Amino acid sequence: MKVLGVVVEYNPFHNGHLYHLKKAKELINPDFTVAVMSGNFVQRGEPAIIDKFSRAEIALEMGIDIVFELPFLYSIQDANGFAFGSIGLLDRTNVVTDVVFGSESADIKTLNIIAETLYKQPEDYQILLKKYLKKGYSFPNARKYALIDYFETKKLLDKDEILIIEKSNDILGLEYLIALKKLNSKIIPHTIRRKGSNYNDENFSGNFSSATAIRKLWKEKKYDLIKASVPSKTFEIIKREEQLGKAPIFIEDFEISFLSYLRTLSRDNLKKYYGVNEGLDQRIIEAAKHTNTIKELYHNIKSKRFTYTRIKRTLLNIYFGITNELIENINNTGPQYLRVLGFTEKGRELLSVMRNRVEYPIITTPSNYISIIKNIERDLKNKRKMWSIDKKTYFKMIEYDFKATNVYSLYYKNKEYSKYELDKKMKIIYRKGKV
Amino acid sequence: MKVLGVVVEYNPFHNGHLYHLKKAKELINPDFTVAVMSGNFVQRGEPAIIDKFSRAEIALEMGIDIVFELPFLYSIQDANGFAFGSIGLLDRTNVVTDVVFGSESADIKTLNIIAETLYKQPEDYQILLKKYLKKGYSFPNARKYALIDYFETKKLLDKDEILIIEKSNDILGLEYLIALKKLNSKIIPHTIRRKGSNYNDENFSGNFSSATAIRKLWKEKKYDLIKASVPSKTFEIIKREEQLGKAPIFIEDFEISFLSYLRTLSRDNLKKYYGVNEGLDQRIIEAAKHTNTIKELYHNIKSKRFTYTRIKRTLLNIYFGITNELIENINNTGPQYLRVLGFTEKGRELLSVMRNRVEYPIITTPSNYISIIKNIERDLKNKRKMWSIDKKTYFKMIEYDFKATNVYSLYYKNKEYSKYELDKKMKIIYRKGKV
Repeated sequence: MKVLGVVVEYNPFHNGHLYHLKKAKELINPDFTVAVMSGNFVQRGEPAIIDKFSRAEIALEMGIDIVFELPFLYSIQDANGFAFGSIGLLDRTNVVTDVVFGSESADIKTLNIIAETLYKQPEDYQILLKKYLKKGYSFPNARKYALIDYFETKKLLDKDEILIIEKSNDILGLEYLIALKKLNSKIIPHTIRRKGSNYNDENFSGNFSSATAIRKLWKEKKYDLIKASVPSKTFEIIKREEQLGKAPIFIEDFEISFLSYLRTLSRDNLKKYYGVNEGLDQRIIEAAKHTNTIKELYHNIKSKRFTYTRIKRTLLNIYFGITNELIENINNTGPQYLRVLGFTEKGRELLSVMRNRVEYPIITTPSNYISIIKNIERDLKNKRKMWSIDKKTYFKMIEYDFKATNVYSLYYKNKEYSKYELDKKMKIIYRKGKV
Repeated sequence: MKVLGVVVEYNPFHNGHLYHLKKAKELINPDFTVAVMSGNFVQRGEPAIIDKFSRAEIALEMGIDIVFELPFLYSIQDANGFAFGSIGLLDRTNVVTDVVFGSESADIKTLNIIAETLYKQPEDYQILLKKYLKKGYSFPNARKYALIDYFETKKLLDKDEILIIEKSNDILGLEYLIALKKLNSKIIPHTIRRKGSNYNDENFSGNFSSATAIRKLWKEKKYDLIKASVPSKTFEIIKREEQLGKAPIFIEDFEISFLSYLRTLSRDNLKKYYGVNEGLDQRIIEAAKHTNTIKELYHNIKSKRFTYTRIKRTLLNIYFGITNELIENINNTGPQYLRVLGFTEKGRELLSVMRNRVEYPIITTPSNYISIIKNIERDLKNKRKMWSIDKKTYFKMIEYDFKATNVYSLYYKNKEYSKYELDKKMKIIYRKGKV
């Protein structure tokens, strides 16, 4: 049995995603395809434009058999943490055999050689890394120069080959490979060349608009142009959610809440939050006091040392009170559950196979999250089944998923949907019939 | 030289305030009158309807010679902390000779006897208090019954006399008296009977509407009725501030910011904040998840044990990260500076008298708050002048004043005024000429 796993955000699902999924399936020819998808907040440190329930619904229509939710605490981390969480989750399904990821280079052999070095951290490499860090280079640059020197000495790779680690998808791909090694996973990684516009391209470019471009079109209410860039199911759900008053959601909707809260903080409170270091605390405190828009806030915090996404993610960490300690812990334990947002009729078969294999709970009814643990404890006591769960981390992790949804839902224009804990109220999405 | 001190909120200044001020002056016949006034947040746990700068401006027109700002950390505390901060500030002017406060009973003799007991906490009383607390009474009720029993035994006061501690102004008055004792102050306390409608009366009642009633009228834009209840200067400034887009400010304006932030919190994070105990933590967390309006939030947290104002103040403590430790500290040290919001030509004379007498800095230019401390340290080193300041508390206290203003200003409708730290940018209000 071949099971293809993909790591996605689908924010929103567009023609490029469909192309990638089709190519991945052609490459693997899987019996099943599953996705691990970010929830209501995404890796660029922003709320998703449309909520996770709707995005899962679309994914199931487009050929994914099971959509797992990447726990919130991984979804807003840098490439390293994001990859560890998502690959960890796919690994813990105990059914995924292959992962396919988009890549600018599509050069898996080179990526694997670099990943091996970054995973094993040989002493020669560490010395070089320290040297470049001491010279004042940012971590990504120090790493790059250290790798160039290291491989030049070893005569393994030349400079041009190493420079693939400058492209966003290759960087993420590299982290997927490192995560697979760290997890000692049996999953086989594959790459396919990315098609369509660049991730950060804000300009519309025909049928293969980026998710960024599509979000911009939605903000500008250019529905015809969105329609041309997304599968009809995406368009249908976009329209439906907008009519319900649940989408689109933009970071600007959080503007006054974020700024107001930041203005209550002191510099000495900030360092405990993940990502706040190297003087970022002062930049954040000062910027918040002197601006009244979120874009200006980012701009005023920005410096050479900090990328925009780093800043945006860090602000989310502060807002949600996500500490260094917590992230260090979860980047050690990995995901503690497999939360299913939705599945197809075919996906249901796979879920029943999984049930006999997993060492972490499959969560289909999140409101049962406490009784799930009680059952696991009973199993462990009776030695009925092997579970690898860390109870304390499990609770922290899932409660953060709930928090993320509870905060997100407050920003729906239709406040009727803001009155409940949607994670506990929404039924799991089940798509009947063949896709 | 006689200097009258009053403790006020003036939220907003109305005919009842004017009446009180006139009566107080008749009683004392002072050379100067100063007020300690809440800043941008008031004791009922809400933002002031109009900012502290405008409220100070009105007060100077209405017969106050100097307006001091009650530090934010005292302004949102219960009667005990509020009284300790405000009386402490008046005491530290080292010029105030008399304070006058409104009182339902106007029975200063009885209030003083009770205050003496509550200050000295004789053993007999403590035993009675513990007894009633053990029986499950709330603190105010246990205190009341203990006092009744205690004075009955001593044959000092009868039950009816003690019941004066059930009225809001008498309760506050009692705390003023206790604070005076605690501070070993030479200030002489006086009471005058409260005139006009009850503090909590939401209904309009002619020329003596309560501040609550006037805020309600403002919300409903019933300007004619406001005009009848406030001095013309108040009305003029109300209109001016509204036109500038700086008023009115309601707690509802903070709704999404408060709810959103509360939804990020966990129960175990909350107990460190002042006022969060006796199960209030769980009530807050649960209520925040299931409501989308602030009024409903209060309502859902409400129980017999907690009053609305207690809940509202506690929510502000949580939002601003005000810990038990911090409040315990400042309720021990008292105010560390005398921040002047404004003064009249006459007030200026008094300020120059004060300068030679105070042991805590008079702050007229808050942006100098760091250099003020440097000068004090120089004085202390050279033994040039005696200062009683606690540096660490000084910084905490004034930085909280700045935070309160920075948060408040974000909610001005005209966002132009939200871009700066107004405490550092606004010039002190100086009112020339005779009032």
